[in-house]
Amino acid sequence: MAGRVPDLRPTAVNRVLAEVRAVQARGIRTVSLMRGEPDLPTPAHIVEAAARSLRDGRTSYPDNRGELALREAVALKLERDNGLCYDPATEILATSGATFGIHAALMTVLDPGGEVLLADPIYDAYASPIRLAGGVPVRVPCPPRGPRFELHAGTLADRITPRTRALLLNTPWNPTGTVFGPGELRAIARVVIERNLWLLSDEIYEAFTYGGARHLSPVAAEPELRPRTILINALSKTYSMTGWRVGYCAAPKEAASAMLLVLQQSSRGPATFIQDAAAEALRGPQDAVEAMRREYAARRALVLERLKGLHACRPLPPEGGFFVMAGIAALDCSSDEARRRLLEEHGVVVIHGAAYGACGEGALRVSFAAGGDALSEGLTRLRAGLEAIAGE
Amino acid sequence: MAGRVPDLRPTAVNRVLAEVRAVQARGIRTVSLMRGEPDLPTPAHIVEAAARSLRDGRTSYPDNRGELALREAVALKLERDNGLCYDPATEILATSGATFGIHAALMTVLDPGGEVLLADPIYDAYASPIRLAGGVPVRVPCPPRGPRFELHAGTLADRITPRTRALLLNTPWNPTGTVFGPGELRAIARVVIERNLWLLSDEIYEAFTYGGARHLSPVAAEPELRPRTILINALSKTYSMTGWRVGYCAAPKEAASAMLLVLQQSSRGPATFIQDAAAEALRGPQDAVEAMRREYAARRALVLERLKGLHACRPLPPEGGFFVMAGIAALDCSSDEARRRLLEEHGVVVIHGAAYGACGEGALRVSFAAGGDALSEGLTRLRAGLEAIAGE
Repeated sequence: MAGRVPDLRPTAVNRVLAEVRAVQARGIRTVSLMRGEPDLPTPAHIVEAAARSLRDGRTSYPDNRGELALREAVALKLERDNGLCYDPATEILATSGATFGIHAALMTVLDPGGEVLLADPIYDAYASPIRLAGGVPVRVPCPPRGPRFELHAGTLADRITPRTRALLLNTPWNPTGTVFGPGELRAIARVVIERNLWLLSDEIYEAFTYGGARHLSPVAAEPELRPRTILINALSKTYSMTGWRVGYCAAPKEAASAMLLVLQQSSRGPATFIQDAAAEALRGPQDAVEAMRREYAARRALVLERLKGLHACRPLPPEGGFFVMAGIAALDCSSDEARRRLLEEHGVVVIHGAAYGACGEGALRVSFAAGGDALSEGLTRLRAGLEAIAGE
Repeated sequence: MAGRVPDLRPTAVNRVLAEVRAVQARGIRTVSLMRGEPDLPTPAHIVEAAARSLRDGRTSYPDNRGELALREAVALKLERDNGLCYDPATEILATSGATFGIHAALMTVLDPGGEVLLADPIYDAYASPIRLAGGVPVRVPCPPRGPRFELHAGTLADRITPRTRALLLNTPWNPTGTVFGPGELRAIARVVIERNLWLLSDEIYEAFTYGGARHLSPVAAEPELRPRTILINALSKTYSMTGWRVGYCAAPKEAASAMLLVLQQSSRGPATFIQDAAAEALRGPQDAVEAMRREYAARRALVLERLKGLHACRPLPPEGGFFVMAGIAALDCSSDEARRRLLEEHGVVVIHGAAYGACGEGALRVSFAAGGDALSEGLTRLRAGLEAIAGE
């Protein structure tokens, strides 16, 4: 087996799921506040676009770059939603989800030993793709300051070595809920530009921001980033299309061409009729997205309300995304231990903050991607569980 | 940009397509005998299975290994069609086409500098995935012997070095049309086993064999290969599903687990509802496949008939696949030059044998994946073009 394989890890969700199955096998019913997967259906007009395209025989090889209609829809979306201008002929690529976009970007910018800066805590499925591409993840400590996790330019600069190639940024930021503001992005951009790094910008949660926060694409905040940025996005969260595996990248021509070469050796892009449906999603009516945003905002409010007033728990109000980081520093145990007790003794599934990096210790990630009775019952169990653990 | 990128190449089809567009831009109509893409529609019951699954809301994340129903359908198919027994729980993986299967297999078995043996000539989209995984393609010369290209065990053994990790075999073999027989496979297997190599077995053309030839999976020919074989296949050719991007691998548990780790960092598998349709394709009625096989057999006969009796051309009757290798050694020019003249002077598109390796020189690859008027007119032009070139 290749030497790169033992360095690869499944995500924390995968590991926790195995524990959940073991608990369920003992006859205990569990409620999940774990996954970042929307429980809302894909809007019907997108489903119908795929069914129509299928029946129209749109089942032969897609253009490896992505079907032109999809690339044009992506260009339109980037201009409409992000104020960015990319050429669909040369600067946009359709990918099998953001996962493949990240993989192709990393394979394109990393040589063996190349270092990639990652905030800590951050989504735990970034480190292994970096290793798969021969690179080394380097964590930038981002402990919470008051109610918010922040990435400071000075801390970022301190972690740069002669081997650093890229910063992989996620805004809105999973699991912290931070949405980077213009000043923060410009400060980060200065470091990226001055130290001649690539910026890989994963913007998959962009549609779901709360309160006064609004998603800002780093390139829109600082246009000088454009020649060194690979923007990665997907339809998974915005349109409840996780299982469709369709996303896109935007990058300067040379990088997009290199990523296309990687893609041709490894995937050839999403199914042709899925690309047609994705174009319809991006171009068509966006009211379903706003309806979903309101739904998630209500769920977020419910989580904050139901975790209020606990001695054991200080929930941080997220500016974006699907997660509340619930601070449990007052408890006398690690986040992993708290997670295990909540699962085994109270049948509620969350992810320990430490799964996302050392600076995630002292918090639990509570997902509101699913709602309804599951969310409500999960929060009841979570509150009771935290009180029980704290009561000892 | 990463050092691996300049080593990657688009396929010959991509390069030739650019020339075709230039010729078309001069107002010349062209006819293609080039691509390995079936022109037949995906059978209706498979399309309907996808549409049904979509409407049933099967749009959330797939199991990263592949949905269990698809893995069970693959296990059933491998037993029914290939006489092979694989465990759907641990030994089967759903992939985004054979392309991703090959990529994941190579990333799993290759360390930097690892060598992979490839017949010469062979499908030109194997070398770049090997390079992408840090490996080195090593060609095994397989000149035609009489009417057939053959891979001899002795020649194979001669190319093995201490760095050799795998043999990537394709049966039925693109572009040569050879279908490996039991004796050939056992001789190759002896080398693979004795020299402790992996066998990556790409069997994507298995359904389309002609005359007395029948596809035999290498592991079925030599069961001792099983612990060192990664079988790669896809629904693309068998069910006219190229644009669906769905395939599968079968491998011993340890290799399948390693490939799953690679897949989780880079793709997460085909769309959920596509996996449902793929399960239906593999489990459901197979008459459409037999009807397609008869159609391709008729097209193959047409190609051989229409290229008969030419001084300039000796077509080799393929045992399987979508291509006739037409020997043009009697012409006073390279296969690439002949291809360019056929395109520019006669408006017919074929691929030069040299695109597939040095031993492909002296032949043109003529595809009968498309039929009807295009095939008929293409053959008329090809015959006239070859006569004109020979007449000089």
